[in-house]
Amino acid sequence: MAYKLYYWDGIPGRGEFVRLALEEAGADYVDVAREPGGTTAMLKLMKDAGGATVALAPPFLMDGDRIISHVANILLYLGPRLGLAPEEEDLRYAANGLQLTITDFVAEIHDTHHPIGVSLYYEEQKPEALRRSANFLSERLPMFLGYFERVLVQNPTGHKHIVGNRLSYVDLSLFQVIEGLRYAFPKAMGGLEANIPALIALHDAVAARPRIVSYLASDRRLSFNESCVFRHYPELDRQS
Amino acid sequence: MAYKLYYWDGIPGRGEFVRLALEEAGADYVDVAREPGGTTAMLKLMKDAGGATVALAPPFLMDGDRIISHVANILLYLGPRLGLAPEEEDLRYAANGLQLTITDFVAEIHDTHHPIGVSLYYEEQKPEALRRSANFLSERLPMFLGYFERVLVQNPTGHKHIVGNRLSYVDLSLFQVIEGLRYAFPKAMGGLEANIPALIALHDAVAARPRIVSYLASDRRLSFNESCVFRHYPELDRQS
Repeated sequence: MAYKLYYWDGIPGRGEFVRLALEEAGADYVDVAREPGGTTAMLKLMKDAGGATVALAPPFLMDGDRIISHVANILLYLGPRLGLAPEEEDLRYAANGLQLTITDFVAEIHDTHHPIGVSLYYEEQKPEALRRSANFLSERLPMFLGYFERVLVQNPTGHKHIVGNRLSYVDLSLFQVIEGLRYAFPKAMGGLEANIPALIALHDAVAARPRIVSYLASDRRLSFNESCVFRHYPELDRQS
Repeated sequence: MAYKLYYWDGIPGRGEFVRLALEEAGADYVDVAREPGGTTAMLKLMKDAGGATVALAPPFLMDGDRIISHVANILLYLGPRLGLAPEEEDLRYAANGLQLTITDFVAEIHDTHHPIGVSLYYEEQKPEALRRSANFLSERLPMFLGYFERVLVQNPTGHKHIVGNRLSYVDLSLFQVIEGLRYAFPKAMGGLEANIPALIALHDAVAARPRIVSYLASDRRLSFNESCVFRHYPELDRQS
């Protein structure tokens, strides 16, 4: 039976981390909210007053009648099923820990344009966004990227993958983070990329994988835009 | 061999979610940073240039030579070992999804007093904190608490536990969230608690468990203070 992915239509957002794993594995899945009536079906599931497992927010995955919420949890579930998780138990916890670091990073990236509240427009919190972005670009961005570079370089089985010696869902998520950051903060990334050669090489290796090449060229891949986690507001971007 | 918990000394913070599970289970553990030289040992592990698994930030757990980072990941690992996770695979993913919702909630609680950057003092971001807190108290706090109340009430095996029909680490974490919120936002919580009776009953049931009673009365339990995630700044608190 096909996996059903539930996520807001029109943005790559957090759903993209799940899509990339499904696409790389060639898995059978439906991107429900992009089908006719899909968003209504998604909201109905979230409001279900009888459900034992209800998600607070998308993305969530249905596999049969199982509902699994949160990107890192979905990838924890899918990883072994799609051949995108390490075999060894220790490394699975390492992969999950790294994915949760990506989760934290993505939340901070989001809050550069929404430091006061998700219910307000960007334009209603612009002075605060300028201040938070400046702090993010000078401190948090180099810290997170430097951490992932370091973990890659220190991987005892080689620095082509961040966990173990084969592709995992964490590698795919790191590709997406680099893509999103290049879109949102081209100036800052331009100044930083020379410091993270292993991470950029990992990004490029993911981008060259046949199924990823094919996916990125398809209409299943949505473009970044200013409704997404990764937004390009030129006034927030600067050399870090 | 005793589990080793690594977390900043002096605050309950995110480490407390792990401590509560270890304490409820009567597990053998060392709270490393509270031992002489412990903080130095913790920082050394984080800076280890040869480690295959390095944590970006505490808390992390060592079990033998395994290092596991992030609260939800640590609890995923410890849960089955301590008898504090559901037996059924489906419910383990449900528990992890709920714990990740708590992770998101705790990050938002933190950002009420640090909306601009963790490297700045509260006093350097007070106008922004006032604005973010107002938004948090009017929208996010009722949303998160209402969600957990709903999941409790909809639990098909009874509303004494949030997952399945026995105590899990998620119940313990929800206890701690209520404790922290009562400390940080007594006015707002005073106005909201009548709306979340099942969650308050769960909190009270956890508080009455013999090992938790004994732990809370011990000097292993640290008090909330203004270096923690949960901080009481009266100017940020109001009826929601």
